[in-house]
Amino acid sequence: MKKFINAVDDVLGESLDGFAAAHADLVVLGAERKFVRRRELNSKKVALVSGGGSGHEPLHAGCVGYGMLDAACPGQVFTSPTPDQIVEAAQAVAGDAGVLFIVKNYAGDRMNFEMAAEIAEGRTATIVTDDDVAVEKSTYSIGRRGVAGTLIVEKIVGAAAERGADLTSCVALGERINAQTRSMGVALTSCTVPAAGMPTFALGEDEMEMGVGIHGEPGRRRVKLAQADAIAAEMITAIADDLGARAGAEALLLVNGFGGTPTIELYLMYNAARRMLEERGLRIARSLVGSYVTSLDMAGCSLTVSLLDSESAALWDHPVRTAALKW
Amino acid sequence: MKKFINAVDDVLGESLDGFAAAHADLVVLGAERKFVRRRELNSKKVALVSGGGSGHEPLHAGCVGYGMLDAACPGQVFTSPTPDQIVEAAQAVAGDAGVLFIVKNYAGDRMNFEMAAEIAEGRTATIVTDDDVAVEKSTYSIGRRGVAGTLIVEKIVGAAAERGADLTSCVALGERINAQTRSMGVALTSCTVPAAGMPTFALGEDEMEMGVGIHGEPGRRRVKLAQADAIAAEMITAIADDLGARAGAEALLLVNGFGGTPTIELYLMYNAARRMLEERGLRIARSLVGSYVTSLDMAGCSLTVSLLDSESAALWDHPVRTAALKW
Repeated sequence: MKKFINAVDDVLGESLDGFAAAHADLVVLGAERKFVRRRELNSKKVALVSGGGSGHEPLHAGCVGYGMLDAACPGQVFTSPTPDQIVEAAQAVAGDAGVLFIVKNYAGDRMNFEMAAEIAEGRTATIVTDDDVAVEKSTYSIGRRGVAGTLIVEKIVGAAAERGADLTSCVALGERINAQTRSMGVALTSCTVPAAGMPTFALGEDEMEMGVGIHGEPGRRRVKLAQADAIAAEMITAIADDLGARAGAEALLLVNGFGGTPTIELYLMYNAARRMLEERGLRIARSLVGSYVTSLDMAGCSLTVSLLDSESAALWDHPVRTAALKW
Repeated sequence: MKKFINAVDDVLGESLDGFAAAHADLVVLGAERKFVRRRELNSKKVALVSGGGSGHEPLHAGCVGYGMLDAACPGQVFTSPTPDQIVEAAQAVAGDAGVLFIVKNYAGDRMNFEMAAEIAEGRTATIVTDDDVAVEKSTYSIGRRGVAGTLIVEKIVGAAAERGADLTSCVALGERINAQTRSMGVALTSCTVPAAGMPTFALGEDEMEMGVGIHGEPGRRRVKLAQADAIAAEMITAIADDLGARAGAEALLLVNGFGGTPTIELYLMYNAARRMLEERGLRIARSLVGSYVTSLDMAGCSLTVSLLDSESAALWDHPVRTAALKW
């Protein structure tokens, strides 16, 4: 295992300390590092709280700030945050308009956010994201997994909350965005969980895992490494068919690196995916290219397509000031 | 070689096409993909033109936009752009105030920018960056190499140009920033150049290359893999001793990933480096953490420390709208 770490047990804590120090203008780290919250809170708006296992940085702590999340709870690597963490985060940021939990569809995350919702005082509601078209059932999930589309839900609902949308409207919007969003991933190498010290799965030098999950869970099939266009074509076909997008629709295209894949390759994949979506008659109205929802050091990427209307496009464009997204 | 590519010869072109399409609000790709320039030009300001071999994305094309570069010339992977490219970029963005070339200190880059300066019409001037303390002479350079500190020079001089500084002032400022900036890198794995199809150098499973260059050039020594704190300590000692920073000084700390290292590890390295600089009495007044000056898919990172004064801090804070930096 080749990583910049000191001790396996200190990876998350030291990384969070660094994150909080580097972005002290935007965020505050809660006691015992249970959560990251915005430095400047607004008690009048719906408070958005997300979280999940670490190892997907910059998600979710990198999404805390004006126009997006109010707090994020980092679990240990690939491990759900505890109900206790989530309750404390909710209490730290809750104002008069209630708290909205945004939860990726994994059994542990759902259970712990549910327990937190029962314990937390005040109004809460929950959106579950499940944008991964690769598989219907996986190692940690019943139903589809929540992956990079979660970032889009957090951005768009975050903007709505900032503009004063109430809790009910935020839930309806989040569910609508999730329903219009599909993703699929591919791994060229495994990730290595620090505590395990060895790759999560084994891939041959000429193999890739098509449909991989963001924890290295199995995808649809293990196949021979192919050219970028062939990889993009399989992913775009799966996504667009499932989405049932009509020609003429406007879409946001997110090409997301998994942590070990460099920017030059992500733009090449964007080029391929965009062309294929345009050939289906979609108009790519918004784009995001970078490593936003990672799987530690995995080489690979995911494609996400989210259909836009004038409301969601405007909310996407709404200013945001977080470590990961700024405009 | 496991990469998202179609054909080795098309990597750069397809990636540039993707980049230009994804950021069409900010940039325009020149004819025959010779350069990337700002969409909206300002003929009254000094025009900043940089460039170099590709494979370091988002540098330099990702630095084109308001508050930073006016144009960037991407050479083939790890290969200097041609004088022809540079001349065409300069002509495309030159206004009344002259053109400033920002060039990393590599023999090929310097030669080709020099030839371009001779051919180009109008006033030009050049800043050469050489912030890498690791070695005094390397595979492609006589004197120190220009690495991640180049991004800081481009940001600060870009802000000054935007505020109306003339060509002479921009040169003086750039030289001052470069002189106050030091970097050092470390590789945990080699990069793989697509056209070569195999790793540039071989590292054992328990080895790292301390002082590596951004093309995989040899550093100071090949040593056993160490803990993050020990790695950061060696780099910070080399940087801070060379910089001769006095206690009480303010500094910008950039922790830069080389392409294959994930964000969670970069923040852990930031945490270590910041603590060590603070122990020397420096105050970390500005921070940047991410993969900005990469070496294709190399796992590794560099640390850069740049001393700040009130002028350079204000210029660092000046708004910027590029693909890589936005605030």
